[in-house]
Amino acid sequence: MTIAATAPRRLESYVCGQWVRGAREGAPLLDAATGAPVAFIDSSGLDFKAMLAHGRDKGGPALRAMTFHERAAMLKALGQALMERKEEFYALSLATGATRSDSWIDIEGGIGTLLSYASKGRRELPNTRVLVDGDVEGLSRDGTFSAQHILTPLHGVAIHINAFNFPCWGMLEKIAPTLLAGVPAVVKPASQTAYLTELMVRRIVETGLLPEGALQLVCGSAGDMLDYVTGQDAVTFTGSAATGRKLRTHKAVVENSVRFTMEADSLNAAILGEDAAPGTEEFDLFVREVTREMTAKAGQKCTAIRRVLVPRAACEAAIAAIGERLRKTTLGNPADEGVRMGPLASLAQREEVRERIRELSAEARIVAGDPDTVTVVSGDAEKGAFLNPVLLYCDSPRSANAVHDCEAFGPVSTVMPYDGADEAVELARRGRGSLVASLFTNDPDVARDIVLGIAPFHGRVLIGNRTSAKSSTGHGSPLPGLVHGGPGRAGGGEELGGMRGVKHYMQRTAVQGAPALLSAVTGRWMEGAPARADGVHPFRKSLAELRVGDQLVTATRTVTLEDIEHFARFTGDTFYAHMDEAAAKANPFFDGRVAHGYLIVSFAAGLFVDPAPGPVLANYGVDNLRFLTPVYPGDTLGVRLTCKEINPRGTAEHGEVRWDCQVTNQKEQVVAQYDVLTMVAKTWP
Amino acid sequence: MTIAATAPRRLESYVCGQWVRGAREGAPLLDAATGAPVAFIDSSGLDFKAMLAHGRDKGGPALRAMTFHERAAMLKALGQALMERKEEFYALSLATGATRSDSWIDIEGGIGTLLSYASKGRRELPNTRVLVDGDVEGLSRDGTFSAQHILTPLHGVAIHINAFNFPCWGMLEKIAPTLLAGVPAVVKPASQTAYLTELMVRRIVETGLLPEGALQLVCGSAGDMLDYVTGQDAVTFTGSAATGRKLRTHKAVVENSVRFTMEADSLNAAILGEDAAPGTEEFDLFVREVTREMTAKAGQKCTAIRRVLVPRAACEAAIAAIGERLRKTTLGNPADEGVRMGPLASLAQREEVRERIRELSAEARIVAGDPDTVTVVSGDAEKGAFLNPVLLYCDSPRSANAVHDCEAFGPVSTVMPYDGADEAVELARRGRGSLVASLFTNDPDVARDIVLGIAPFHGRVLIGNRTSAKSSTGHGSPLPGLVHGGPGRAGGGEELGGMRGVKHYMQRTAVQGAPALLSAVTGRWMEGAPARADGVHPFRKSLAELRVGDQLVTATRTVTLEDIEHFARFTGDTFYAHMDEAAAKANPFFDGRVAHGYLIVSFAAGLFVDPAPGPVLANYGVDNLRFLTPVYPGDTLGVRLTCKEINPRGTAEHGEVRWDCQVTNQKEQVVAQYDVLTMVAKTWP
Repeated sequence: MTIAATAPRRLESYVCGQWVRGAREGAPLLDAATGAPVAFIDSSGLDFKAMLAHGRDKGGPALRAMTFHERAAMLKALGQALMERKEEFYALSLATGATRSDSWIDIEGGIGTLLSYASKGRRELPNTRVLVDGDVEGLSRDGTFSAQHILTPLHGVAIHINAFNFPCWGMLEKIAPTLLAGVPAVVKPASQTAYLTELMVRRIVETGLLPEGALQLVCGSAGDMLDYVTGQDAVTFTGSAATGRKLRTHKAVVENSVRFTMEADSLNAAILGEDAAPGTEEFDLFVREVTREMTAKAGQKCTAIRRVLVPRAACEAAIAAIGERLRKTTLGNPADEGVRMGPLASLAQREEVRERIRELSAEARIVAGDPDTVTVVSGDAEKGAFLNPVLLYCDSPRSANAVHDCEAFGPVSTVMPYDGADEAVELARRGRGSLVASLFTNDPDVARDIVLGIAPFHGRVLIGNRTSAKSSTGHGSPLPGLVHGGPGRAGGGEELGGMRGVKHYMQRTAVQGAPALLSAVTGRWMEGAPARADGVHPFRKSLAELRVGDQLVTATRTVTLEDIEHFARFTGDTFYAHMDEAAAKANPFFDGRVAHGYLIVSFAAGLFVDPAPGPVLANYGVDNLRFLTPVYPGDTLGVRLTCKEINPRGTAEHGEVRWDCQVTNQKEQVVAQYDVLTMVAKTWP
Repeated sequence: MTIAATAPRRLESYVCGQWVRGAREGAPLLDAATGAPVAFIDSSGLDFKAMLAHGRDKGGPALRAMTFHERAAMLKALGQALMERKEEFYALSLATGATRSDSWIDIEGGIGTLLSYASKGRRELPNTRVLVDGDVEGLSRDGTFSAQHILTPLHGVAIHINAFNFPCWGMLEKIAPTLLAGVPAVVKPASQTAYLTELMVRRIVETGLLPEGALQLVCGSAGDMLDYVTGQDAVTFTGSAATGRKLRTHKAVVENSVRFTMEADSLNAAILGEDAAPGTEEFDLFVREVTREMTAKAGQKCTAIRRVLVPRAACEAAIAAIGERLRKTTLGNPADEGVRMGPLASLAQREEVRERIRELSAEARIVAGDPDTVTVVSGDAEKGAFLNPVLLYCDSPRSANAVHDCEAFGPVSTVMPYDGADEAVELARRGRGSLVASLFTNDPDVARDIVLGIAPFHGRVLIGNRTSAKSSTGHGSPLPGLVHGGPGRAGGGEELGGMRGVKHYMQRTAVQGAPALLSAVTGRWMEGAPARADGVHPFRKSLAELRVGDQLVTATRTVTLEDIEHFARFTGDTFYAHMDEAAAKANPFFDGRVAHGYLIVSFAAGLFVDPAPGPVLANYGVDNLRFLTPVYPGDTLGVRLTCKEINPRGTAEHGEVRWDCQVTNQKEQVVAQYDVLTMVAKTWP
């Protein structure tokens, strides 16, 4: 079907594999700029219990049957398919009040997050279904009992309850890590802009790229859905603290200890460093960033700057400069090219923001913008939810409360003076936990003192200076690789952060036992697990033949003093510990001249390499190399090389193989221990 | 003061640096075996608000001023001091009903956890105040904008509300990671056994090893303490699910998104693998483990085995064997040497367990032990809280509920038959989330299928078999290096897990900015941050002189075909890619013969090493070595070596220095990138 942005229609939910309407027509959703109805929304009559069961019974098993790389490839294809259809989303997004650049954050920012998870998933996760977490923990002296933490996907559904301001990004940034983890998602967008989420889910479902049950959608109220959550489900919420508290204390959520992640109000601060006086590049960047954050999405971003902390001496200049830029911000119909800022999401939202401005006015005075007069270049000044940007100034922020507590979710910020870095830190902390703060400085000491001072209260801190002026992604942008969330009043949640976000939907389990059995569980070889030496050099085996545990025990080689001296002369590494017996003896770690570490690994390769062309294509690296026992002239070295992990690539004729490499001396002391990383062909010849 | 175990006394709380009594005499706490009063407990009148403020204002700053290694050293000294006084704790522990081996878990297990955190903290954490988390995230093509996640200690207090069964371990396993993180703790033990916690805290305070405010103690009710928590505090709770829910939904906890970790009821399963038929070693191990878990601490362990899953064919034999061992378990005064099992903690606790047994009896029948008759070899059968171990059998566990839901917190377990591995998995999951499960098998396939099947529902899984029979730490023992906690009904918490547990008390923050400023924040050099080349070779600088960012750019060296051939012959590494032009060309990664990776790093060392004796003592390893561009004959290599991280040791005259090592060719392509790890003297000469 085609969605015409102009025809109001009844939104549908995607439930148990079908698009279904609510029992009633539901409430109308109005275009933010024109007030014209866009859609009707209602979810009454939906069977939420069946919906969760469908996700768990259909979506979960299908996703868990795939490997991380297969899921990453699915996300990549999905991201590409959505990118091809992006103009349709942009067209409908106008109704939310978003300008083209506002929509870019939501639409392409969202799809970009999906693609980022696809590519990071491919690069940073193995091509398996179980994640190994951390190192093997030895639990016995004789090596018969060890432990390994693993991560497995939850066997439930992730319910994502999203805010109205990012109908696309809000969904995509949450389903990307969820699906990559192997967990099905149920998305419930905020009603006000659900029509855009609904359109995107339609396009997602049409691609057929996701297995059935992997994604479901609720347009309208979540009804009694949370009554059915179990300890294997997860609930995330972005929105007001009041609603968040209600969900967090929902009976079934509490009784089943359901994972609950919340992202709520946040009075994010931007701090101008004391070094960044008017006239510096950092001052100008600060002014630009504050203005941009006030006006992008008409200030309707959970990461927007609400509190502007400025050295007292610079306040006047900062207010003048920010005020000047705000006055130049043209309001109007977001469809018009000259328009820099669109309306708020709804008239109700505007009334809410005006109320908050009145509250703030008890402690701060308005120094730029009039909240009650609307000046637009286009759009319907009557029916559109337009609001001028408003800058306030609070002269005594230490004794004030509302300015640190009351979030006007629109183009509204308050400038506050501070005296000294300690006071800047103290004021930033008065937000009692925020998603993000930014600091504009070019002084490393200022950066260190303020960032470390405010870090415990923030999920993200951005430092702006002249060096990163052009490359900075800005105060307000959560990035897929960085954690998003904040402590305390910001909700105490953490999402994104690259592969950290994937693990939020997996259970960490410590598995203990004999190495042979642990290896069977993890699919990785570990010390003490059985090894296979079948007479065939493991470098002669392609991925089709190679097995975890395949092992080579090499011949030995004695290291002579001549070898050491020769290696030193040849490489130029004439470090005294190799060359001067007396000086080497004086070294606290050596009893005399020792072989170079690089000589040991070079000789080891000479012992384990099979020279003829074969399936092993290249040694592309070494991990965790440790020299554990000095090698003295006359010592005899041998190598034990064991296939530890095999990662066939989905999109190439080869894959990564990790080998455990242990070099020992004639006393069976381990001389060097490391992982050798190779590329191996899937088949050979 | 000296604590006489026999004289009942009024317990005191340690508040704001002083030992204080509650306003009233309080309730008497009775000896579990004799019923004699041991102590009186009351916390009325305590100023809980001041207590939290004291921790935040005194303990927090003092702990944060220390480095991780300094905190680890503090824990080590504390653990050693407590170990010296252990007999005093054992003596008082008898009153809780614990036998010597029960007390060992609590006392030496607890002190051991402290010592383990001390040694792991020293080994696995840097000697800094800020933790770097994960890799640098490049955010711009030109390298002017990057990000690094950091972890900083919360600026609040950690409130640990503990269960009665482990008055020592329960406190120590929680304060170890808390203090190592740099966060002060407030401990509130369960009243029933608080006298032992109080004694240990007295001894801790007497050592003077902890800074004032780092540890406070509440003996008695926590009163209105939770009313004062903020988003920088953390609350952990071990105990009943009902109490846990109350705390989790406490107004201030919810409103401030306080980190809340809970560990509650858990109906842990032990599964006998289908391969482990009667007569196998695994069968015997299983029987022994089930019996031990039922009787250790009289079954009053959150990790005890409550559900015994046995292949249907083996049920009769399992019941007979477990019953036989249970009958041999002598009950009595825990002070007596021949006694294997002491009383429950109190008569009320016994009544509670008997009530649960009655509940279970609706679905299962008792097959060993009589809950209503007490058979003791010593102790007061009337006033002591003795209870015989009781084994039940439930023939239809799939249709039963109470056996999966009702936790009898005493020496009580239920045997259930299963048919096939899938059903074993299904039944284990019926616990709806458990702390631990164990599986007894010697078959790797059984291990893999069952462990992966139950992993999402468990925080820990132990596999028992003949190999680890002697070295296994057992089903019931949480270990400092492994996570402890479980999803769903087990509370959804996670604690311990080595350094993971430390991070639970720290805030993760993504810091973005220009590398120069990021480096100032983290104290680590990163690509793009300023480097210093002052004409002195950095290997000539001791830790007293060396600074992060000190850099050496070496002379260059051209790699000839002769070098490659010579290296191949010398090391024995005659891999075709180095030796055979045609074969090398056929390799998908190379355009012709290439230099060995080990030749590159060896030549690099030859370029960067300064040969004369100096402060750099040894190269002890290499991390994250990647060969990024092939090196062909005629290529000219140069090295840039930059001091990345400096970790002086607290207890030695040297420390670890990590160097960023980048090898480039004449086209300025990066050929190899790695970290070189060295030991460097603190002073020289």
